[in-house]
Amino acid sequence: MKGNRFYHLILVYGTLAFLLGTGAAAAEEDGKIVHDAEHYILLQQHGEKWAAEDKELDEKLKALREKYGKPPNIVNILFDDTSTGEVGSALANKIRGYDTPNMNRMADEGMTFARMYTEPSCTPSRNSVQTGRHPVRTGMYKVGFPVDAYGLGSDEVTIAEVLSLAGYATGFFGKWHLGDIEQSYATNQGFDEAMFSLANQGPPSFFNEEGEKAGFTWGYTKGAWDKKYAIDQQFRPYGWINYVEGKKGGKVREWEDNSVESYRKSKATIKDRTIDFIRRHAKSDQPFYVAYWPMIPFDFSSVGQDLTTSAQTTWAQNMELLDSYIGEIMEELKKQGITENTLVVCMADNGPMKEAEGFGAEYIFRGGKGQELEGGIRVAAFAQWPGVIKADSTVGDIIHEVDLYTTFARLGGAMNHIPTDRIIDGIDQTSLLLNGDGYSRRDYVHVYTGNVLAASIKQQFKRSWVGDRPGLVGNAFYDLYRDPREKFPAMMQMLWAWPNFDHMRARHEAGFKKYPKKEAPRDVPFTGIESISEETKQLQEYVRQAHIAAGHIKE
Amino acid sequence: MKGNRFYHLILVYGTLAFLLGTGAAAAEEDGKIVHDAEHYILLQQHGEKWAAEDKELDEKLKALREKYGKPPNIVNILFDDTSTGEVGSALANKIRGYDTPNMNRMADEGMTFARMYTEPSCTPSRNSVQTGRHPVRTGMYKVGFPVDAYGLGSDEVTIAEVLSLAGYATGFFGKWHLGDIEQSYATNQGFDEAMFSLANQGPPSFFNEEGEKAGFTWGYTKGAWDKKYAIDQQFRPYGWINYVEGKKGGKVREWEDNSVESYRKSKATIKDRTIDFIRRHAKSDQPFYVAYWPMIPFDFSSVGQDLTTSAQTTWAQNMELLDSYIGEIMEELKKQGITENTLVVCMADNGPMKEAEGFGAEYIFRGGKGQELEGGIRVAAFAQWPGVIKADSTVGDIIHEVDLYTTFARLGGAMNHIPTDRIIDGIDQTSLLLNGDGYSRRDYVHVYTGNVLAASIKQQFKRSWVGDRPGLVGNAFYDLYRDPREKFPAMMQMLWAWPNFDHMRARHEAGFKKYPKKEAPRDVPFTGIESISEETKQLQEYVRQAHIAAGHIKE
Repeated sequence: MKGNRFYHLILVYGTLAFLLGTGAAAAEEDGKIVHDAEHYILLQQHGEKWAAEDKELDEKLKALREKYGKPPNIVNILFDDTSTGEVGSALANKIRGYDTPNMNRMADEGMTFARMYTEPSCTPSRNSVQTGRHPVRTGMYKVGFPVDAYGLGSDEVTIAEVLSLAGYATGFFGKWHLGDIEQSYATNQGFDEAMFSLANQGPPSFFNEEGEKAGFTWGYTKGAWDKKYAIDQQFRPYGWINYVEGKKGGKVREWEDNSVESYRKSKATIKDRTIDFIRRHAKSDQPFYVAYWPMIPFDFSSVGQDLTTSAQTTWAQNMELLDSYIGEIMEELKKQGITENTLVVCMADNGPMKEAEGFGAEYIFRGGKGQELEGGIRVAAFAQWPGVIKADSTVGDIIHEVDLYTTFARLGGAMNHIPTDRIIDGIDQTSLLLNGDGYSRRDYVHVYTGNVLAASIKQQFKRSWVGDRPGLVGNAFYDLYRDPREKFPAMMQMLWAWPNFDHMRARHEAGFKKYPKKEAPRDVPFTGIESISEETKQLQEYVRQAHIAAGHIKE
Repeated sequence: MKGNRFYHLILVYGTLAFLLGTGAAAAEEDGKIVHDAEHYILLQQHGEKWAAEDKELDEKLKALREKYGKPPNIVNILFDDTSTGEVGSALANKIRGYDTPNMNRMADEGMTFARMYTEPSCTPSRNSVQTGRHPVRTGMYKVGFPVDAYGLGSDEVTIAEVLSLAGYATGFFGKWHLGDIEQSYATNQGFDEAMFSLANQGPPSFFNEEGEKAGFTWGYTKGAWDKKYAIDQQFRPYGWINYVEGKKGGKVREWEDNSVESYRKSKATIKDRTIDFIRRHAKSDQPFYVAYWPMIPFDFSSVGQDLTTSAQTTWAQNMELLDSYIGEIMEELKKQGITENTLVVCMADNGPMKEAEGFGAEYIFRGGKGQELEGGIRVAAFAQWPGVIKADSTVGDIIHEVDLYTTFARLGGAMNHIPTDRIIDGIDQTSLLLNGDGYSRRDYVHVYTGNVLAASIKQQFKRSWVGDRPGLVGNAFYDLYRDPREKFPAMMQMLWAWPNFDHMRARHEAGFKKYPKKEAPRDVPFTGIESISEETKQLQEYVRQAHIAAGHIKE
């Protein structure tokens, strides 16, 4: 027996060494998707079981496809700044003083994720859903503001592109926030049609007289700056563009303007266009993928508006607005009779913004937007697909938003359109959706803040790499069951996990040798937009000069 | 119109002045229950509406009484150290790594309280449920350990006494923790039968060799103390008594002993006796009131036991044990066919113990046991009464555990047995239970830590009195909707509420003039217990001498 066991160990470690050393290369040669090294550790242990599961899942998906004549529609809802537990239950509503009956109903009728992880801030998070890759691989690791003059590269392959290749109709409505250069536009990244913002809701809320009056912005408007000593007259990004709209591959045009009034109006417009898209595609032979990524509930511009919630806050007001919009979208699916062939994934992009307390606030988890703490990366998330996803189910499995990419592709029959020449962090989580609790294929997350690896999560344990020192001091491990708020950095109790966390990091970082980290492309902003104003043209030129001076682009 | 309005104001303020100045006195003279001054502020504004509601409620209760031939049975479950949201949902379970299906079902089939407040620690909390009075009024404001030699005074009137007078059978099983002197025993405080502990689960868990080995206790056991310089041989409370059992008014006897083995065994015994009590009284003409106050989930003595939960912690293990016991009790009610004439209130006594992190932990709210922060006083709480309490309802109203006293009395037709010669903090919350969300008769809580007023809550606002200074510095106000974790002490934003919080405190404290704060009676412990050991007799004598020396009792 002992001899056998030893032989078995040699076999396991030999295979592991093969997989870790050459697994990714082998995968690429085979035309297979290349994942993070951690995936191959799990594949080695569960490959056979997963293959058997996959066979059953394929049959199930095939049956559904035959029943409905097409693969499922996908409604991808991504809202702002809400951590796990903040919405989805009446108790949370009563504690926070607002009601979200539609999202609560989604929890009742679908799946609630207890451990849905995201990147810790807007742009990175949106990057990850669209590309299935952590921002450190695409260069989209900063939060964009007017005018960054960079964006998602045309060499990235979005889920919209992947699903388009598989025959999906694709629409994007809302906060794109993935760049202000032409190649990054949603319409150049696989969407048939789109109304999308180049940045987030901060600018239209703040960059104006109202924002200045409320104290959110200092010295922006023409009336509010030092005329005497402010020699550079173009330092303020006047002429920046908020929303644009257009069709795949064509020119886009500015939607209204960058005023706060237009932003306020856009909230309903974005929702209406989403509903209109659904209505137009419901009866088609083509399945659809529609992204409703509203610029709410985070909305400074609501200060001073009528408040009707228990919590007399603009956050609460916008949360109820968001919830009612989600309700309208769900209602439209019902009205069109397509609820049962439509997967809805509804979630937040990251945790609450600590810099804006009084809008969001910490709830169960510590920390918020921008941080590697659970409060920054563990979000409210629900999936609904009646008859396929078990109603009123809650899964304790780890899942990451990058997994949506791969999972949507699997459901859409589009796996063969995922590029195999790069690392895809997203794991196919179809089994979790269809089989439920305990069926995740991921028990790890590498957490980046910007392009710095700040923490790694494995199972219920988390290691913070921030403040880590090689000696015994300052190394922080957490058991997230015991200490969900990460208040007590443990070390002695987790000594057993120290080397394996080190190994996990090392094999993850080894992946950068063949597939290096990337910087996002930089360019002149706002090209490809029809009839831009003189002010915008001046801004373009100013930023072009800035890029030249910084060596980002050539003259 | 203006004249009329002015006249109306005079009328209102005149009446208010009357109520506040003489309201309590008038109430007592009328043979009415005397409440905290805050109640009369609300009564003035809502008295008529409440009277109309009460008429309807009386009719409803009368109809129920006629239908079942007796008033409702009351099952009063009080467990340890669990704050709002920690149990009652699958999401919370997944986050913490244990399952509480029975309490979750209670939330589905009954009412969840989003703002059930308690005193911040064990003894005070138990005092408040039993007497309907804050501990500052009864003197039971400290947490008892062996051997305090004080306890709940015989002049206090417990809910068991009140319900007994109205014809209820009464049983107590579990953690009494309201004193180790004879007059304080549960059997001398209105219970027909009881198996009750004099202190909490710390002593049986810690005060032994196992506890010493685990590092929870230092220098207690005979093998572990300094024999050379420890001159006082009786400084350790050897001979302390854990559980006793007996019948109303009679002698009690020790149940087993104070060993950790007996404590472990007691967990099932307490549950079994509760079930046995229910079984014996189910078919009786007499309604019953049974308190199941288990010494779980807080249980240090489980360290090293087999762990079967996701979170491999003794806390999780005991939480599942507690939940299964609650499930058995609920099942027994069903089996006896009395579910529909039985109100079950199931809740925790206070928040998690911060000194014992790794057992409990903070969840939604900041702070824990002993603190005036929400994490210390806002607990997991459910009420179930099929057909009477609306299923799957969640109430955002403020309710305090003292209200159980008055509410149980109302439901039991025992209001006339509540004493009228003292302040009763408990408010009748029958309307909240029967009419649901928005029907609380309380929008305030005065929060005591020990006998110090540490904070006052009014509506969604909270003012901390700790660290308060008369100037503008250090005054902390919180909006609990905006900032549920009380992280950001606000002042400027709450200036409007400053004087009214001052008034609220002043009128509350004015009540102590006529009804002064009290100290709990002190006496020789363990009298009235049959055949106590020699060791216990020595301890009695030691503590008697201590009391004499301190001037607590006469020789």
